[in-house]
Amino acid sequence: MTARLIAVGVGPGDPELLTLKGARLIREADVVVTPIGDRSETSIAHGIIQDLVDPARQQLLTQVYPMKKDPAEMEASWQASAREVAELVRAGKTVVFITIGDPLLYSTFLYLYRILRADYPDVVIELVPGISSIFAAAAAAGVPLGLAADRIAVLPATFEEEKLRQTLLDFDTVVLMKVHRVFDRVYALLLELGLEHQGVWVRRVGSREEEVVTDLASLVGKKLDYLSLLIVRKQSEAGGGVR
Amino acid sequence: MTARLIAVGVGPGDPELLTLKGARLIREADVVVTPIGDRSETSIAHGIIQDLVDPARQQLLTQVYPMKKDPAEMEASWQASAREVAELVRAGKTVVFITIGDPLLYSTFLYLYRILRADYPDVVIELVPGISSIFAAAAAAGVPLGLAADRIAVLPATFEEEKLRQTLLDFDTVVLMKVHRVFDRVYALLLELGLEHQGVWVRRVGSREEEVVTDLASLVGKKLDYLSLLIVRKQSEAGGGVR
Repeated sequence: MTARLIAVGVGPGDPELLTLKGARLIREADVVVTPIGDRSETSIAHGIIQDLVDPARQQLLTQVYPMKKDPAEMEASWQASAREVAELVRAGKTVVFITIGDPLLYSTFLYLYRILRADYPDVVIELVPGISSIFAAAAAAGVPLGLAADRIAVLPATFEEEKLRQTLLDFDTVVLMKVHRVFDRVYALLLELGLEHQGVWVRRVGSREEEVVTDLASLVGKKLDYLSLLIVRKQSEAGGGVR
Repeated sequence: MTARLIAVGVGPGDPELLTLKGARLIREADVVVTPIGDRSETSIAHGIIQDLVDPARQQLLTQVYPMKKDPAEMEASWQASAREVAELVRAGKTVVFITIGDPLLYSTFLYLYRILRADYPDVVIELVPGISSIFAAAAAAGVPLGLAADRIAVLPATFEEEKLRQTLLDFDTVVLMKVHRVFDRVYALLLELGLEHQGVWVRRVGSREEEVVTDLASLVGKKLDYLSLLIVRKQSEAGGGVR
């Protein structure tokens, strides 16, 4: 087996939503790296892999990915993590880096990836997709993401009112990630556009704390979970809006 | 175990990209339904599940989902498929309906789902997400789908020039599904916007015929594979454009 870095998307939380390939590669790895940033995500990632790894045979490594310090500090921290991973691969190890969801969508891995490609081009990188929380949330809520000629937009939590209004007008499905920070303003916009009954909010999909809420008004003014998203789905002719 | 219909997303083609949950539910099912529409997708779906099912113990059913007839004929065909599935569940069977990719994104299952929810509300439906070809293609191409505050759009093959131009201007990543029908016009638009080196085309990801093309000019004028998509990714400050 070639020494390499393998980024494995471990899915949204339910250990059974890991792929067969991800599970195999985690079992076969010499080193399994878990990024630490937000405390909850770390425990989710740990919960997914804990039954697959063997601490007697495999090295379990945690790397800190701070998200609140200044840019230079963050960059230095990512640089150090990249160096650590690169040195393990150069020493002949097969290193699996796990990420919640998918490694190429809003993941910690992308910071490492950029540095490794730029500064350590000899390090072979394999990417293994994972189930994004978007798909798990749609499944939990029973809401189609799109069919036929539907257009879908995925947006982060930042609230740019005009852009968001236009996107809600132009797209059939709009997924708002980490919506907790801006929920009240988003809800006001949905009301204005007559879309307040077309949304479903999902938190911590696949965990014991999973919650699916279609009565969006009940969420206004509350402190919402960091790991939550909102799917706004217009009723299409082919059916399949929010229930 | 409750008799029910379980829609399982089996991923884009590689049998190892099935989830642990999907594999278990396919093995445990009384009946496994494979939808037939496009010939290639059917063989991909069959290839993914063939080692998991036991024809001596399980019923393997194919259902035809025609896509080219008139709407009334299509509707009648979907109605018949829904009735067949509902009757199996009502007879106490656990029925798995497999779909390439994810069941809630551009899948045949969504036609069945609409009818079952409207006309057979007693039939319990479970949804198991799968790896969409979008994520597998991004992994094959090594292209981030989005990080930090990036905005992502997923669009079908229909070519509405003004809408597509605006989407390419407004979003950081644009994924064009089943782009084979309109590729030349899309490429002309990318040229106009100076994005012709920011795209990557992927066909049949995860299969032996997988191909990743970044020299988009080389595809112009050619008859392209039906199972292909184009990811246009702008270079972001955080890095991570198309290589």
